[in-house]
Order: sequence, then C-alpha cells, then structure tokens
Amino acid sequence: MTTQEQLHRWHELAQQLRVDSIRTTTVAGSGHPTSSMSPADLMAVLLSKYLRYDFNNPDNPNNDRLIFSKGHAAPLLYSMYKAAGVINDEELRSLRHFGSRLEGHPTPILPWVDVATGSLGQGLPVGVGIALAGKYLDQLPYHTWVLLGDSETAEGSVWEAFDHAAHYTLDNLIAIIDVNRLGQRGQTELGWNTQAYAKRAMAFGWQAIEIDGHNLTEIDQAYSAAVTVNDRPTVIIARTKKGKGVASLEDLGGWHGKALKSDDAKRAISELGGERQMTITVDTPEEQGQPASIGNPQPLQLPKYNKGAKVATRRAYGDALVALGAAQPNIIALDAEVSNSTYAEDFAETYPERYFEMYIAEQQMVAAAVGLQVREYKPFASTFAAFFTRAYDFIRMAAVSRANIKLVGSHAGVSIGQDGASQMALEDLAAFRAVWSSTVLYPSDANQTAKLVAQMSDRNGIVYLRTTRENTDIIYDAQEEFPIGGSKIIRSSDRDQATVIGAGITLHEAIKAYERLKNEGITVRVIDAYSVKPIDMQTLHQAARDTKGNLVVVEDHWIEGGLGAAVLDAFAGTSNTPIYNGPQLRLIKLAVRDMPSSGTPEELLHAAKIDANAIVEAVKSQVRQPVGV
Amino acid sequence: MTTQEQLHRWHELAQQLRVDSIRTTTVAGSGHPTSSMSPADLMAVLLSKYLRYDFNNPDNPNNDRLIFSKGHAAPLLYSMYKAAGVINDEELRSLRHFGSRLEGHPTPILPWVDVATGSLGQGLPVGVGIALAGKYLDQLPYHTWVLLGDSETAEGSVWEAFDHAAHYTLDNLIAIIDVNRLGQRGQTELGWNTQAYAKRAMAFGWQAIEIDGHNLTEIDQAYSAAVTVNDRPTVIIARTKKGKGVASLEDLGGWHGKALKSDDAKRAISELGGERQMTITVDTPEEQGQPASIGNPQPLQLPKYNKGAKVATRRAYGDALVALGAAQPNIIALDAEVSNSTYAEDFAETYPERYFEMYIAEQQMVAAAVGLQVREYKPFASTFAAFFTRAYDFIRMAAVSRANIKLVGSHAGVSIGQDGASQMALEDLAAFRAVWSSTVLYPSDANQTAKLVAQMSDRNGIVYLRTTRENTDIIYDAQEEFPIGGSKIIRSSDRDQATVIGAGITLHEAIKAYERLKNEGITVRVIDAYSVKPIDMQTLHQAARDTKGNLVVVEDHWIEGGLGAAVLDAFAGTSNTPIYNGPQLRLIKLAVRDMPSSGTPEELLHAAKIDANAIVEAVKSQVRQPVGV
Repeated sequence: MTTQEQLHRWHELAQQLRVDSIRTTTVAGSGHPTSSMSPADLMAVLLSKYLRYDFNNPDNPNNDRLIFSKGHAAPLLYSMYKAAGVINDEELRSLRHFGSRLEGHPTPILPWVDVATGSLGQGLPVGVGIALAGKYLDQLPYHTWVLLGDSETAEGSVWEAFDHAAHYTLDNLIAIIDVNRLGQRGQTELGWNTQAYAKRAMAFGWQAIEIDGHNLTEIDQAYSAAVTVNDRPTVIIARTKKGKGVASLEDLGGWHGKALKSDDAKRAISELGGERQMTITVDTPEEQGQPASIGNPQPLQLPKYNKGAKVATRRAYGDALVALGAAQPNIIALDAEVSNSTYAEDFAETYPERYFEMYIAEQQMVAAAVGLQVREYKPFASTFAAFFTRAYDFIRMAAVSRANIKLVGSHAGVSIGQDGASQMALEDLAAFRAVWSSTVLYPSDANQTAKLVAQMSDRNGIVYLRTTRENTDIIYDAQEEFPIGGSKIIRSSDRDQATVIGAGITLHEAIKAYERLKNEGITVRVIDAYSVKPIDMQTLHQAARDTKGNLVVVEDHWIEGGLGAAVLDAFAGTSNTPIYNGPQLRLIKLAVRDMPSSGTPEELLHAAKIDANAIVEAVKSQVRQPVGV
Repeated sequence: MTTQEQLHRWHELAQQLRVDSIRTTTVAGSGHPTSSMSPADLMAVLLSKYLRYDFNNPDNPNNDRLIFSKGHAAPLLYSMYKAAGVINDEELRSLRHFGSRLEGHPTPILPWVDVATGSLGQGLPVGVGIALAGKYLDQLPYHTWVLLGDSETAEGSVWEAFDHAAHYTLDNLIAIIDVNRLGQRGQTELGWNTQAYAKRAMAFGWQAIEIDGHNLTEIDQAYSAAVTVNDRPTVIIARTKKGKGVASLEDLGGWHGKALKSDDAKRAISELGGERQMTITVDTPEEQGQPASIGNPQPLQLPKYNKGAKVATRRAYGDALVALGAAQPNIIALDAEVSNSTYAEDFAETYPERYFEMYIAEQQMVAAAVGLQVREYKPFASTFAAFFTRAYDFIRMAAVSRANIKLVGSHAGVSIGQDGASQMALEDLAAFRAVWSSTVLYPSDANQTAKLVAQMSDRNGIVYLRTTRENTDIIYDAQEEFPIGGSKIIRSSDRDQATVIGAGITLHEAIKAYERLKNEGITVRVIDAYSVKPIDMQTLHQAARDTKGNLVVVEDHWIEGGLGAAVLDAFAGTSNTPIYNGPQLRLIKLAVRDMPSSGTPEELLHAAKIDANAIVEAVKSQVRQPVGV
C-alpha cells in the first residue's frame, strides 16, 4: 500500500517534471511540453518505485531499460535525469541547443539512452529485442519499459511488436501507452477509448490494464501487476490529459509541439506550484547477476570451397555464419521466415538458442537486432534483399541509434530469374549506401563471402551484405583475404585499354566479357568491387590512370545510387578530399533501367544489358571513341 | 441454398484450378502449386457466384476488384483467368517464361490485375485504398476482395489496414485469409488457430467468420454474410490445407515454392480427377452506375508570391494543392497525421470529402494512394520526408504496379533545426531516385513549388516532391515556368570560373556564396537543379564546358545518392547515351557526412559544411588548383 506521504512525493515529483518540461522548452523556444506533461505522473511513479537502474553504470547488465518511444517527450525524459541527479539544471536548460547532449529527440549520445527515438512506432519493437535478450540470452530478471504515445499505435510496427512479444512470452516487457487523446493535428483515431486499445492488446495475447494515468494509486497498482505477471507481456493503457496541470493547456488542441512564451510559462509554472529541485534516489538492481554464458568460443574455421565449383553466395553466408557462431558465442541470428532461402536455417539448426524466428515482419526483425545489440550481442538479420526496404525507416533510425547490426539480403537483382520484379532487390545498394555509418558488401564468390561475413562481426555501424540466389563459380582461393574497403584486380596487364568493374553476379559476366574481348585483341582490366562502401578509391584511380580513363561499371541494380554511383563518387572531391586529377574519366554505367519481368537469369541479365554481351559492347564503344572527341 | 449440382460444379472448378496450377508450374519448372491449391475452393466459389466482373471491360467502374495479396499464388489466379475464358491454355503454360504476361507474381501487365503483389502484406492496405474510392468517391456498390496468406498477417501493414478499414467502415472490403498453416519454412506463428486471427480482427472492428476453407457450403455462406454486412469490413478466416487434394503434398512441409516433376505432376493430376477444360461465365456487375461527381473543374489559379517575401515551400505546397484541387476534381489528398506541418490541412479543410486522414501509418497511406489511382484518382500523399522511408517497400511495389502517385515530403534535411536527426530526411533523394518510373523534384521557392505541384498532377509514375520547413526567400517571379527535367541558371556571366549547383535550401546558400565570391572577384554560375530526376543534362554539360569543368554541388542530404549523384550521373555514359566529352570534370560534392544534432538551421547547415561558407571554400579550392595538377 502507498502512504499519503508517498503519494505526495510522487505528485511533487510529477509536478517538477512538468515544470522542468515547460522551463526547458521555453528556453529552447521549441519542443513538446504538453506531450511531456501527460505522462509525468506515470514516469514519476516509475522512477520513484519501479525502475531498477544504476545511473552510475549504464552498462550494468541488470539494469532495467526505459525507452521513450514517444521521443518527442524528451523534455520529460531529461527532467527525469535531472530528478535522478545525473544532469544538472544548467544542462537541462541546454535542451535543443547546438552542442548539447539534450537533443530534440533522445539519442544514445546520452549514456542512459539505449536507442534513438523520434520516428514513432519503433520503441516497442526495439523493446522486444531487448526483452528477448533479457529473457533468453542474458537470462536476467530486468524489465524493459516502453513509453508510447497513443497516436503511434497506428503504426503497424507496433502490432508486429505486440505479436512477437506475446509469441515469445516476454513477461519482462511492459508497454505504457499515454492516451492523451490529442495527436499533432487533432483527436487521435481512438481518442480516449482505452477499451479499444485493451481489446486489441488482449487479442494479441497481452495483459492489458486500463487506468487513469493521473491517479497515482492506479499507476502504482498497474506497475505492480505488470512486474508480477509471468506468462505474458503487459500493456498499461493510461488515460491522460495533454498539458495536464495547466488549465490553459490541459486537454486543449493547438498545443502540440509548441513551447510556451516566457510569460505564459511563468504562469503555468506557478499554477503547477512553482519550481522544485527535488532529487530522488533511483533504486539500483537488486540482483547483480551476469549474463548467462552461451558457449565457449572455438577457433574460427571458416568454410572453404574449391575453385571451379559452383556455390551460391547465400549458401556460403549460411555456412560462414555457423562457423562464426562457433567462434563468437555472442552472435545471434534472426530471419523473417525465409531462412531456408537465406540459409540462416543452418545457424538456427546448429544454435537454436541463439536464433529468433521473426516471421514475416521485417520491421520487427531489424528492431529486434537493434535491441539485441543494446545488450552487446551481435545480431545478423537476413531476408530477401528486396524486403529490407520494408524496414528502411528502422535501418535509418538504427544509424541514429549508433547501432551495430548486420543485415544480409539474398535474392538480389534480376538474376533471381522467374519470380519476377517484386522479389528482385534493385534499390538495396542505393538505400544502404545512403545510411549513415553503413558498410555495403557484395561478394561474387563463396570463399569471399565467408571472409566478408567474418569481418562483418566486428565492424561497427550498419553492415549490409548482398548475396546472390544463383550458384556462381568459385573464382578465389580459400586463403585469399578481402579486407573491407579493398577490391580485387582479377585480370590485368600492362596493355589494358579499359577497366571493367563488377561485383556479385556481374563480376562473372565481366570475366566472360574479358575472355571475349581478349579473343578480339582487346585486353581489359577487371576489378571486383566487393566493398561497395567504402569503395577502394586508390585502385579505381590507378585503373583510370592505366586505362585512359575508360571505366565500365556493371551492376545488377537500378542505375541510380548503386555500384556505379559509388565508383563515380570515388572521382569527385568533397570538402575534405581532393578531386581526382588523372586522365579524363570516360565512364559507362551498365545497370538495370527497364522494369524486369520473369525469365531465366541469363535472359534477364541480357535483357537488362548487364551481361557479358553488353560489357563487350560498352568496352568496344569506349576503345573505339578517341579520347576527347 | 446451394444445390448438389452447384456444389459439384464448384468442386470441379476448384479441381481444375488445382490441376492447372500444377500443370503450369511444372512446365515452368518453378512456382507455387501447393500455395495455389489451398485457396482453390475459396476462389472457385468466388468466381462462380460472387465476383461481379466484366472481363471485357476491366475499366468498368462497377467491377469488383480482386487482389491476390499472396501473389505467389499467381498460378491459381491465372488458372481462374483461363476458367473465365480470357486466357487460353497455351498462354497459361507460358507462366514464368520470358516475354509472357504471366509473371511469377501478378503485375498489371495483365489487364485484370490492378496492382502488383509479391511483397507480402501489401494487398490488404491497397484494398483499403480501392474500398475508400468505392465507398466515398465513386459511391458505387462494388466489392474489393483480397486473398491473403496466413504468414503475411505477421506484417504490421496488415494491421494498419485492419485498423483503417474499420475506422472508415469499409463494408465493401472483404479479406479472405487462406490459413494453410505452412509458411515457407515450416509452421506459421499461429498455425491453424483461426480463433486467434478472428479475435484480433474483431478487436480491430471487423466481422470475422471462421470456416473450413474446403467446405464449399461454408464458403458460400461466408461470402453471403460478407456481402450483406453493412457496418464493417469482413474477414473470412479459412482453415485450409496446403497442396489440398494430393496426398503426397497435402499439409506437408517441404513443398513451398516447389514445382512438381513431370511424373509427379501426372500422378497428382490424375488424383485430382484429370485435366478439365471448364469455362464459366463470370457475372458482370448488376449496376452500371457512374462514379459520383465530385465537383466541376475550375480554371487553375495557382497561388502567387511576391519576390522578396519569405515563404516556406511546404506552405506553397498546401496553397498549390488547394488551387489544383479546384481545377482537378479527381485530386485526393492523404496525410499521416502531420497535415498541419505539411500543409495538407488546407486541402482537408477546403475539400473534406476528398481528404483521407491516414493517421501515423505511412505504409497504409502509400498503399491507399496506390488503391485510389487504381480507380483513376490522383492521390497526393504527404508526411515528413524522413517518414516515407517507413513506406519504402510500398513505394518500390507501387512502381512494379505501374502506379501513378504523388508523394510530398516536408521537413527535409538538417535545415529543419532543433528537432534533431530522427526528423531529418537525409536519404530521401537517394531512395526516391532509385525507384523505377520516379520523378524527384526539390523546389527552392514558393512560386516554383506551385508550378511543380501543378505538373505533378499529370506526371505518370512515382512523383516525389521534397519541401523545406524553413521560410525561404521568394526568388522567382510568379510567371516563370519550371518544366520537369529542366533547371534554372540564376546567376551567370561570360567570365564564370566555376558552377555551383544547388536545390531547395542550399540554393539560397549558393546565392549567398555567389555574392561573397563576387566581392572577392570570383564569378560563378549558379544553377537551380529543382528537377533532380530527370536532371537537366544539357545545362550541366554546358556549365562544365563554360567553367573549366569546375562544378560544386551542394545538398542538404547524405553524400550518397542525392543531387550530387544525379549530377555525376549526367556525365557518365550508359548503354544508350554517350559519355560527356567536354573539359575534364572537376566536381566537388558538398553534402551531409556526420550525424547531425539539434541546433538552429544556420548552425546545422554550417556544421554540415553545406552553407555559403563551405561553398565559397570549395569554389576557391577549385579555382586555385590549376587544371590537370
């Protein structure tokens, strides 16, 4: 039972959080005070009684995790940090200023923030990932708390999270929906119909508790029920008022994302009982356990393939991931119900305790990967390359979260053949290149794939590997190394008249073109640009110098943003790299331009003009055309 | 009541559909016979008794619509077309062959297919769009039928559709879930737990009917109940067996996406009673109404802004859309709960009957746009530019659908300021450029915006407009024209030493840089590349020729795939365009490279090195560096 004194202290804390949310946004001149005020009571009780968090050691594996999925309530979160005594009032007032850690939406620049939020509907799916780690990998009793706005439940990704959390019986996951009824531009779809939320959540297998989100006793009881349930996740559906506590704001439209002017702020603060400087001691975790051990590392023994054989790079991914799994017990695999196509199933069979089936929910899969890496696991998530487009916003936000995740897309390009355009990734290189912190790899051979998979594990940021459906020739010896950022010159002479740059499936076409051109007396250099980002600028510049600037880039991808664009970028200057100054670049991009259909891989490569034939023609057109004409 | 003879005919038709699904995939050597066999009974009854479709006139506005969301069941769909007499057996056997209309997954190359499917979880959201058109715009009594697989209900987008369909009381929408229990790699999450599906659907406000999907009487009754309900959408949850009717396939794992070998196919066909050549007459719509009129077109009167004023391009989008709405009654606006930021709210207020609030569900928003254009409306869908990444797979598939949709993203780039990285679109140009059929526009001025919005309306394909949050100077006269594919040279002389290319917010920085450089005796050309795709190749080539190849491209976007990439592409050759052959290109790309934070727009443009300062430095570095050194 709660005493009157406790209730009073909670109320005082909630009022302080409201006051500070107003103060800091008024100083900033922007931000979301009213959205911070509605869940202030919820957060006051959480911080005072339920959260177990060692602020001195955010890396303590026993810490609860708190995600503000409604990232625009950042002022409230930061006010909680002040109340917890880890930031001072001066820093609080730096909200939204250039150089401050207190950005408009939370980011992991702050040591207590695990993931960036601000793109709504992502916090709960990420919470699922952390809760998976807690329950199945760490096997520690910490809780993951996620504060959601009501509007964001319109995002399908939230229901992917509801679905997966129940499927994996994540009783360590607690969602709190701040049902303040008012979205950015008016009433939300469901308004204060908390029962509608509850029905949906229960239908998805959750415990749902409807409360008055300003009644401290009800909040206390709901949290108590949430932390004691042991067969399902809990959602607390809290009816609240936006701008609660200030009559001129409370439950009124037109106040979303608006800071109060200085005079209005003064009046509002006065109405809330004035400024307070309470600090509270947040309980640290009772248990101080260590994450469950998940096997002893074995020496890495990557698979080896014999030259001359034909093996799909997706097959090599599966083999290499199993090998890597033995060497690195913190590797976790995820797949979106296509593990028999991506070959993640090999890992799933070998290490079932380190595999999570994500069903056909790519957003949840990427979010789970982000959650797992919060707990310092190394997630490898795979699906058809085309279907990572489904999760592009999650990948974008993973970068803002400074997350380290590895994504592997199979079935890239027209070379998949009969299935047709819907299954062909033709924009994945462009999309992944345009992600901050990304690495983009595209192997052409199984031995190369294995070496790249091994390197992915320790590579920070968003690391993407594109694999190929078809069996392709093993062209490299199993001993060769393929450093990220490098390339391989696989054919060259001192008489090369042009350079052909390929990667993945098109490298094999380049090799065929080399032979045909050689028969016609034209020698070309062939470069395997397996590292699309970062690209091997030096080797490309040297090739341009050696082959009169004649470059042909060939890729199984739309003509925009992929390998051709990466090669072109290598010849542009930036604010800190000089412009290439060798012979004039005469570059031809061969890439997919028309919407492909079904057909054999050969027919489709030919129709797209990215086969050996097209390369031969392009090289001939370059060699025939005199320089400068 | 159904007579025995009816039931027999339906059964025979279902068996024919199964046989043909086997025959055609066996000829192709790939495809999905078993996934086609499970819903064959469902489709036999639909085609025989409930579908109202004029196969001779697919454009008849009274036609029901049928979407195979489980696009991999394409053999079944094509077998239905054969049964309806619109393709012959020879064409049926061309499935998956190069040049055939019968692709591995359905596409609108076939006149009876409205949208491409194959990326799961998209059919129902698109169906919501068509049903919105039917109920609120056409006001015609046709039904939209969507066949879903069970696995795809794991996609959150399906629940966005459930949510929106109920919200808009789409009693004209009928979903049929083929619960065959087996996904690609084993049992689905919910198996045959049809009650779990029903609970979820009912919690979202639907009528849910659980049936045995092989019991023709139950199917008949379910459809009958579905077409008579008038206050909610209906989902029929049909328990079925994958590979139904062939003992060696039925309800067995390991048969997903596998064609039968010739001998196995013969045995299976025999077990199904052999080949049949039934054709049936599909009922045409009883009503032959015309879509409801939605106003008379007025002459187009675009908004005009005075030079020297400061107006945000997003504001101009809102104004222009209202103007266009008066001139074109078939324009429909959609927004994802940020209409007061994108200014779609102006349209919503002026034409409430032509505005659909999509709440925070960007996937559903884009899908609804695709559905609306099926019925020949012109949808303009807007949200923050960053959040279109949420719907990237839907945009990709919209291109495969050959859809004509207009997407407008506000709040692009670091120049949004204080809200921080989660709200900043920095990959949108790259993402949209790498979409087939796309047009990418990025105005810098309100008058230009209005002119571009007017052109978007009649432009085919995926047309994207990027708008800016901040107020920017009106630099163009309201009379000027801005053709798509063009650019504007806004500063030039016969002594230009370099060319600065900007668009949107950076054009204003380029103008500032021009002034500063001029003061230092360096004259530069300034080009407004408002049409990022297609880009104005001629003007860029001329500028390179006129300014010694010195180009500086400056953009508020990651360095990959955006405006800088578009400019570089203009200087590369392709299989059908020659390589630029003017003076050597010396191009500097100024773009965002470090993760931005909060700050003022000016601070952030400066920190990203994309402000006037950075442009001045870049130009100076070019002008100082002698050519060829």
